[in-house]
Amino acid sequence: MISLAELQSHIESGKLSADDALARSLEAISQHEKKIGAFVCRAEAPRAAASGALRGIAVGVKDIIDTADFPTEMGSKIYAGWRPRADAPVVMMLRQAGATVVGKTTTTGFASRDPTATRNPRNPDHTPGGSSSGSAAAVAAGMIPLALGTQTGGSVIRPASYCGVAAIKPSFRMLPTVGVKCFSWTLDTVGLFAAGVRDLAHGLSAITNRSELLPGPPIERLRIGIVTQDFASAPDQESTQALRVAADAAARAGASVGTLDLPEAMAEGWDAHETVQEFEAHQALAWEYETRYEAMPPLLRAKLDETSGIRPADYDEARRTANRGRKALSGLFEQVDVLLTFSAPGAAPKGLASTGDTRFNKLWTLMGVPCVNVPAIEVEGGLPVGVQVIARFGNDAGALTAARFIEEALARR
Amino acid sequence: MISLAELQSHIESGKLSADDALARSLEAISQHEKKIGAFVCRAEAPRAAASGALRGIAVGVKDIIDTADFPTEMGSKIYAGWRPRADAPVVMMLRQAGATVVGKTTTTGFASRDPTATRNPRNPDHTPGGSSSGSAAAVAAGMIPLALGTQTGGSVIRPASYCGVAAIKPSFRMLPTVGVKCFSWTLDTVGLFAAGVRDLAHGLSAITNRSELLPGPPIERLRIGIVTQDFASAPDQESTQALRVAADAAARAGASVGTLDLPEAMAEGWDAHETVQEFEAHQALAWEYETRYEAMPPLLRAKLDETSGIRPADYDEARRTANRGRKALSGLFEQVDVLLTFSAPGAAPKGLASTGDTRFNKLWTLMGVPCVNVPAIEVEGGLPVGVQVIARFGNDAGALTAARFIEEALARR
Repeated sequence: MISLAELQSHIESGKLSADDALARSLEAISQHEKKIGAFVCRAEAPRAAASGALRGIAVGVKDIIDTADFPTEMGSKIYAGWRPRADAPVVMMLRQAGATVVGKTTTTGFASRDPTATRNPRNPDHTPGGSSSGSAAAVAAGMIPLALGTQTGGSVIRPASYCGVAAIKPSFRMLPTVGVKCFSWTLDTVGLFAAGVRDLAHGLSAITNRSELLPGPPIERLRIGIVTQDFASAPDQESTQALRVAADAAARAGASVGTLDLPEAMAEGWDAHETVQEFEAHQALAWEYETRYEAMPPLLRAKLDETSGIRPADYDEARRTANRGRKALSGLFEQVDVLLTFSAPGAAPKGLASTGDTRFNKLWTLMGVPCVNVPAIEVEGGLPVGVQVIARFGNDAGALTAARFIEEALARR
Repeated sequence: MISLAELQSHIESGKLSADDALARSLEAISQHEKKIGAFVCRAEAPRAAASGALRGIAVGVKDIIDTADFPTEMGSKIYAGWRPRADAPVVMMLRQAGATVVGKTTTTGFASRDPTATRNPRNPDHTPGGSSSGSAAAVAAGMIPLALGTQTGGSVIRPASYCGVAAIKPSFRMLPTVGVKCFSWTLDTVGLFAAGVRDLAHGLSAITNRSELLPGPPIERLRIGIVTQDFASAPDQESTQALRVAADAAARAGASVGTLDLPEAMAEGWDAHETVQEFEAHQALAWEYETRYEAMPPLLRAKLDETSGIRPADYDEARRTANRGRKALSGLFEQVDVLLTFSAPGAAPKGLASTGDTRFNKLWTLMGVPCVNVPAIEVEGGLPVGVQVIARFGNDAGALTAARFIEEALARR
């Protein structure tokens, strides 16, 4: 994989020009893309910027995010050839930081369930996960050092785990969702994929102009609370192993590691996620569902058919439940610095028919808290399995610092 | 003006066909539009729906709200002729309720400060206010019974006050802002204009499928807290008079009316509004500002030039301040059912150069609470002055019920 932080340091020291850094990605894309299918379209002759912390950094942008220079097709024929007028704010943030958008990455239809043809770079017989399939795969294949995805259920953390890359779903609304095709305005969150946690930190810091996100000094005694989300039912043995391995590594590296029970209000929050998501999806996708029913991605359409009966009162109650869950979660962070849990129910499922299950992600999306995937182990078939580090709302720096601590502890084992 | 509730009742009773109801609006538009200039574009041959609670109701949609069948020009030449692919969810909600969108209404450039040529129907030498200029004017001129606007500072309540119509800015996110050109995602709120409060209630209820918003039984003893927002500096004598007249009328009608001091945390919230708004506007409008600088609406551009130095830390602090303000406000609603305050600093300013001042609105937009404008008095030049009724977050039904109580009390005086 291409490390953003490493490229950046070579460019800053003059060891590498921004043009040459960009050229590496373009070369890697021409080498791997045919096998992976991570891109919907690519820039014809992308150029590196002359300045900016991310000059020379090639970025892939999930194809539900508006771009003025590329079509934005939402993973659906309903938007075939659609060209927005403006770049989404988050794309402008990338450009302002000097990054070069080299292409749009594949997405399941409207960032929901209908899979793309993208392969998992770690094992082409397996899904890369979704909905941010192309972004995860493009980084995992070593084609680009940075990619944008979005998560409404588990569409950033899960594909990152399946593809063996680092990823962050930042605090809700740290990155604007303006110009991003909406599925659920309460949940949709823009996230980043990169080779490692340090790369995420450099990328997110440059995009947001938040220097506090840059890697800081090592943590004295990190307090980690292990949570197994029992309300989501048990994961596969692979994810259980990944969590145990990561917890053990962190403990050996000096962290204080204990198991935490999540309060009942959070189990209720987990349960409320779908009501919030589907009620809002019916509004957000009303035009497509009502006027382009036949052309809708079939799995998404079936889900909308199924969930059309949610009433405003159910939705209001689900939002209140979510608020109670957020309060309860906030209390947990009095006891620990971060939570550590599964990133997905197991390794990437075989085949491309399903992008996997969001059940270990959706609560954290609803809580709006920062989540980081750290690749933890490799299992049969060369497939990676990650763990998920979660911090308090607004403490993205803490999530990244803890994730880097765990990443380094895992590297030393 | 055309009363939505009255049309609806005539249609339901069979006294009037939906087609004839719609035709009334079309006739009124052809009669008044030339003098007022409320529309950017109009449907060629609009038709009434056969069913739905709002069948036969002609609606105007502010031209920053996406429509598949009309251009959406954002009040700026940068979007001249721009045609979105899809209807915004709130437009679909109108259509699903049976309403007919008869045209797009004028907006200041990107719903900010640069005025339109729209006239105030109550006195053509005065501004109708903004940014939802066309929506307020079209309803006030008796052209349409319902219009959609948006408010980020005071862009719904203020023009309603200036034009003498009822308007509601509902609780934050009751109406989705998806497909609405973003200025500030924390603040942007879709609102409705109609002839009277009862009309608003029928319109909002039909659009949202929330029957609890329909007018209910009269309130036994409404507790009203008068607030003067002294941190916003004093209003003109006209608004002082409007508030006194409304308070006296409500008291005579049996309400318990007292004066409330707003806690310091809310004064700080008032002050934080601009930081939130402008920090987000720089991101939301980054593409336009960076790539179409010369074509930007000049007053908006100057404001963006002025506010480019807001740092992420300032923004984070402003958001925390806003949260403290929300908590303090929530406490006030233990003592009273609604707050009553100014809708604007006075009557509509003379001339079309300025759309007026948001200083009595912006706190409530930041608080996310439902606000209703009730026309209260008429002053020199035939200009109306309204008062603003404010309820607890989520209590839109209470805001409408109290506003109707005050409207009726004013009618009896």
